[in-house]
Amino acid sequence: MYIILVYDVDEKRVSKMLKLCRRYLNWIQNSVFEGEITEVKLKELVHHASRIMDTECDSLIIFRTRQEKWLEKMVIGKEKNEISNMI
Amino acid sequence: MYIILVYDVDEKRVSKMLKLCRRYLNWIQNSVFEGEITEVKLKELVHHASRIMDTECDSLIIFRTRQEKWLEKMVIGKEKNEISNMI
Repeated sequence: MYIILVYDVDEKRVSKMLKLCRRYLNWIQNSVFEGEITEVKLKELVHHASRIMDTECDSLIIFRTRQEKWLEKMVIGKEKNEISNMI
Repeated sequence: MYIILVYDVDEKRVSKMLKLCRRYLNWIQNSVFEGEITEVKLKELVHHASRIMDTECDSLIIFRTRQEKWLEKMVIGKEKNEISNMI
């Protein structure tokens, strides 16, 4: 499946979340990631994220779609390097 | 069509962007919005956003899908009020 992931976590936890998400997805904006992922890997990611987050005040939203072609992306302004997940 | 919109703009321009996006979409996380929108309204939104943004350093990403049912949303942690766009 293809997902878009966005998080909003306290500054103290940002670097951990960023590092975690980059292990699974492509980083496309400040706290936004996208990519193809399996059901198992997604569960793993959500599990690790839940352990980093304070669920009382942090938020993680994941949009899932079966096929990437069902989503069309428009970028206005500055675009992150598409292979930023490899750096 | 149904869209997800995420922005990353300099602090100085955040309040203007937030106000603009809330006129068209539902606010679901810090800088993330979603909602049903027409082609015309989306063009209008992008036009206004471009005038607020400094496209050298700010970024706006829009994911479009023809039908909301093609996207499944998972929320972990704190969820914004679903009718926050009406406040």
